[in-house]
Amino acid sequence: METRIERIRKDICSISRFNSTPHKGCTRFSYSEEDRKAKNYLLEEFNRLGLKVSTDAVGNVRARLEGEDAYAPAVVTGSHIDTVLHGGKYDGVVGVVGALEVVRTIVENGLKVNNPVEIIVFAEEEGSNFGVTTVGSQALIGKYKLEQIKNLKSADGISLYEKTKAFGLRPDDLDKSVIKPGEIKAMIELHIEQGMQLEAAGVPIGIVTAITGIRSLKVEFTGVSNHAGSTPMHLRNDPLVGAAKLIIAVEDIAKHRAFSSTVGTVGRVICFPNIPNIIPGRVVCTIDLRDVNTDGITVAFEVIKETVQQIAQEQGVEAHLEVLGDVDRVGLSEQISGLIEEAALNRNISYMKMHSGAVHDSCLLASITEVGMIFVPSKGGKSHVPVEHTDMEDIKLGCDLLLDTVIRLAT
Amino acid sequence: METRIERIRKDICSISRFNSTPHKGCTRFSYSEEDRKAKNYLLEEFNRLGLKVSTDAVGNVRARLEGEDAYAPAVVTGSHIDTVLHGGKYDGVVGVVGALEVVRTIVENGLKVNNPVEIIVFAEEEGSNFGVTTVGSQALIGKYKLEQIKNLKSADGISLYEKTKAFGLRPDDLDKSVIKPGEIKAMIELHIEQGMQLEAAGVPIGIVTAITGIRSLKVEFTGVSNHAGSTPMHLRNDPLVGAAKLIIAVEDIAKHRAFSSTVGTVGRVICFPNIPNIIPGRVVCTIDLRDVNTDGITVAFEVIKETVQQIAQEQGVEAHLEVLGDVDRVGLSEQISGLIEEAALNRNISYMKMHSGAVHDSCLLASITEVGMIFVPSKGGKSHVPVEHTDMEDIKLGCDLLLDTVIRLAT
Repeated sequence: METRIERIRKDICSISRFNSTPHKGCTRFSYSEEDRKAKNYLLEEFNRLGLKVSTDAVGNVRARLEGEDAYAPAVVTGSHIDTVLHGGKYDGVVGVVGALEVVRTIVENGLKVNNPVEIIVFAEEEGSNFGVTTVGSQALIGKYKLEQIKNLKSADGISLYEKTKAFGLRPDDLDKSVIKPGEIKAMIELHIEQGMQLEAAGVPIGIVTAITGIRSLKVEFTGVSNHAGSTPMHLRNDPLVGAAKLIIAVEDIAKHRAFSSTVGTVGRVICFPNIPNIIPGRVVCTIDLRDVNTDGITVAFEVIKETVQQIAQEQGVEAHLEVLGDVDRVGLSEQISGLIEEAALNRNISYMKMHSGAVHDSCLLASITEVGMIFVPSKGGKSHVPVEHTDMEDIKLGCDLLLDTVIRLAT
Repeated sequence: METRIERIRKDICSISRFNSTPHKGCTRFSYSEEDRKAKNYLLEEFNRLGLKVSTDAVGNVRARLEGEDAYAPAVVTGSHIDTVLHGGKYDGVVGVVGALEVVRTIVENGLKVNNPVEIIVFAEEEGSNFGVTTVGSQALIGKYKLEQIKNLKSADGISLYEKTKAFGLRPDDLDKSVIKPGEIKAMIELHIEQGMQLEAAGVPIGIVTAITGIRSLKVEFTGVSNHAGSTPMHLRNDPLVGAAKLIIAVEDIAKHRAFSSTVGTVGRVICFPNIPNIIPGRVVCTIDLRDVNTDGITVAFEVIKETVQQIAQEQGVEAHLEVLGDVDRVGLSEQISGLIEEAALNRNISYMKMHSGAVHDSCLLASITEVGMIFVPSKGGKSHVPVEHTDMEDIKLGCDLLLDTVIRLAT
């Protein structure tokens, strides 16, 4: 039994057409019209396969193939279809299309599964709306209270609560969306690597054994805005100079003061009022800290906290540091890794075991179930950019291993 | 003969109501609806006084009170009504309202002037649309070719040519807008100080003897955008770290490597794609360099050029430095300063002679005519911010000195 490359290609192409920036990569934010259209495409496919479909409070779509034993816990597979601004066509989409193709293959071959097999299309994985990643999977494991989704706001001040409501969802049903104990047997996610290890090794499949932890910070410096021409240098309290010192410090800390596995990135900086002839009054920047070794994050975070205070004093500005999100390092299931490995050996597909530097929805589910992940190579290690690419042949190999693993777990 | 404070207050209040951010300072960009409404208010006042009114290719409004000698060169006074984002109510407006009140006082007193007296409301002084200041006055002295106003673009890619055309102006008539030799006898501008020297000295009037030079730069760093989690630190080419080094260098250069009179400001930084979990691919920032001593700008500029190259090498990014604008230090007219001083002595108003750290439209006109400037105090030295304030009593004193000086020059 194997998956079919033409169908995989068609699904990926179809979804990638729902794109708000067609001439500059692929942009499909959760709760946008493109998101709605892409989901409608998937819903049609799910309905065609006779799956039982539902959408939860924050927009996660769940599609269920019933098993012989209706009360057995479900074997879940899936990923997300939202993107960053000007991102690529493969990040997330490969895992959703893979899940669809796996269930399609099971149904078309008339294979009876014992456990239900469920596809989840996670909402708002990228953090493009609210600056916080894996919102959909966090809601599924009960990490959010209603209060929190009312306070989680986008740059233009709209809350997750308002956004989902405006999209036609029922955010007040948040509690009902949480996965119940014993509801799930396992979660397997197919995803692009978003790094260059597989390409460098010339291997088409990565079996993920652990996923990096991530801590997201926001730092705000507030100084005194004034005329750039008539304010002498010694009378300034320029928060942009403070932010600049922090940006340099984050690179230095990740490179030299934490571990070799630690990475730290300032990806967003917003300056107010951002006018050439005005000394800035306020600057906000984000810090993204990651490490597969949790201590690396702890060390980096402590040094950053000190540095922010030091900068505030030096520059005579106010500083406010906030932890926006915290996802622990996750060790994945050895049992599922073993099944994926067995499948690869059976099909004679070369593979390597590896860590993941990127966080994925499935790692959130590791707190409630057994989780496995399959990686396929990213050309040049590039992701979150328009040139993001994975060969269709590699995606097909990933789908075949996903198929084997889901069948082994569900029968 | 004196100007009337109630009328001045009413004009300033009326204009400040045309504001696109009514709850956050005053925002009135050139070529906006607020600009149009504020100009309509002024046009009504000009028409009521029987002035001959015209609007030129880039939106400078000129209103002329004919003199006994129709062929004599005009005595000009005025300023601008455009603001920065979330700016104040007084910057520019005080000089426009002052000019209106002066002509109003002349007309209502039935005083016959020999030379025509002209009010100019300069367009786009602040650079809020295109990042380049004093666009209107540069057009008036023939500094722009049609080509250039087609290439001068805002952050969203709209050119000055397109913007003025969409506003109902005739940018193709650019050449006809240039002031002709012998057309103007003198230019006097009343303006708020935008610094704290007058307040510190407890003096209501500044007589400006020289205006700082200004060089506006744009620096663009281009690196490689990639996933913040799966790109190791040593494989990064992060242009935001490069921009951060430049921001710190600009402060250091202005403070320690040029002159004590030199100021340098990075007021705008734009990061692409500006998403927390993506390493930035491109960062653009502006540098505003000013000094009343031209050598200070030259020294700072040379060090900045070197620094940009050095940063590009260190960070493995491409760097591009562009000079957006260059306004020389301007020494003002001793004759006009003398007339203002005489008027102050006659009226028993205390004054001080001073430099201006901010560039004004009138200093552009110094290349074609005699120029004088009168400053009134800015509370706390604050300008380009919502709390910008000047006492109405001080504005009235400035208007009286402007009146005396215009009359002396025009009769």
